[in-house]
Amino acid sequence: QRTEAFIRPSPAGRTLGGVTRRTRETMLLTEAAGFDIVLVETVGVGQSETAVSEMTDLFVLLLLPGGGDELQGIKRGIVELADLLVINKADGDLAPAAQRTVADYRHALRLLHTRHPDWEVPVMSCSALDGSGIAEVWETIEKFREVMSANGELSRTRAAQATAWLWSELAEDLLELLKNDAGLRKRIDSLEQAVATGRTSPRVAARMIVEQFIADRKTDKP
Amino acid sequence: QRTEAFIRPSPAGRTLGGVTRRTRETMLLTEAAGFDIVLVETVGVGQSETAVSEMTDLFVLLLLPGGGDELQGIKRGIVELADLLVINKADGDLAPAAQRTVADYRHALRLLHTRHPDWEVPVMSCSALDGSGIAEVWETIEKFREVMSANGELSRTRAAQATAWLWSELAEDLLELLKNDAGLRKRIDSLEQAVATGRTSPRVAARMIVEQFIADRKTDKP
Repeated sequence: QRTEAFIRPSPAGRTLGGVTRRTRETMLLTEAAGFDIVLVETVGVGQSETAVSEMTDLFVLLLLPGGGDELQGIKRGIVELADLLVINKADGDLAPAAQRTVADYRHALRLLHTRHPDWEVPVMSCSALDGSGIAEVWETIEKFREVMSANGELSRTRAAQATAWLWSELAEDLLELLKNDAGLRKRIDSLEQAVATGRTSPRVAARMIVEQFIADRKTDKP
Repeated sequence: QRTEAFIRPSPAGRTLGGVTRRTRETMLLTEAAGFDIVLVETVGVGQSETAVSEMTDLFVLLLLPGGGDELQGIKRGIVELADLLVINKADGDLAPAAQRTVADYRHALRLLHTRHPDWEVPVMSCSALDGSGIAEVWETIEKFREVMSANGELSRTRAAQATAWLWSELAEDLLELLKNDAGLRKRIDSLEQAVATGRTSPRVAARMIVEQFIADRKTDKP
């Protein structure tokens, strides 16, 4: 382990795959602390890759040899989000399978959507064990950054990510506001109960709570 | 196609895998129209299975022969959500592979969490082509319903799903309220711009908007 690197495992908590609201904040904090590169690793559950692709500059999909010949739905959805595919464990007796997998994914990618008009998603192999291919992977990552900076897509993506983040924070804050509204407490409790027992639909209950919220607002005094 | 069945393909829209807020409403509508059984099929992208498991009584994972011997992260996360695993295409020269896959998944499931204490997730094979195994799959689905009804888990799940739905509707409604607030319009626009250009953090901007929202509220007159 190098002293220049800081590793922070995050508990997955209630979120599948462990990418939480706090992941973004941890990333910001790490940047503020002077780190140039922040790697977010997921445990590989579909939902979290989607979340991660919405908060990072580059999404690398790390795969094992084998399995590139038949892209089923789950994997296909993730592959479409990736900016770079890397087949790891291209060493020892897995090396030939790794090369076949590279060819399989290159073929598969021709049939899929890509996220960026200026970037053909590369498929590479490497070995974390003997280090082969790692330097090339890093060069490709730098190349991606160059291309995306040059065509303005990097800043557009970051602006869109920041705005989406703002709205998700707003949604959370507004729910907090509602939950802590003493005047609404009873009404929310009884409607939540009505919804849980099927007496009212969630849609109707939500509308009633919000209408009450608006009505309270109109009659509030300074 | 049978006249008793109604099939409605839904466009995926912006949601990965195509499970949207409207899926729940479509399900309700179909029930109201007198259909006893509503099947929600996803295109198989990780995120949508999670969403579907949060709005249905039973989650069947349909798999192909092969691939059960090594459960990587993505698939593993989905397998843990399933109430029933079915290996399809157990016919012709794929039949032996299908049987191996059944055994592989049975083995894998022993090492995974299950969602229900009273239900050991069955792994079955079938052939949609020659119809073999379909009746047994359906019997298992009925059995699941019986068990979950008897132990009260079905109604508990439905109550929890309805309540979660209420809160997600509330979040959407509150955002609408905020977006349509004429007094806040300018402030939201300028803070959204500040966030997009990196001058303000999403967290800080959200707090400022909500504080303004509360302040407006306090000074409102009837």
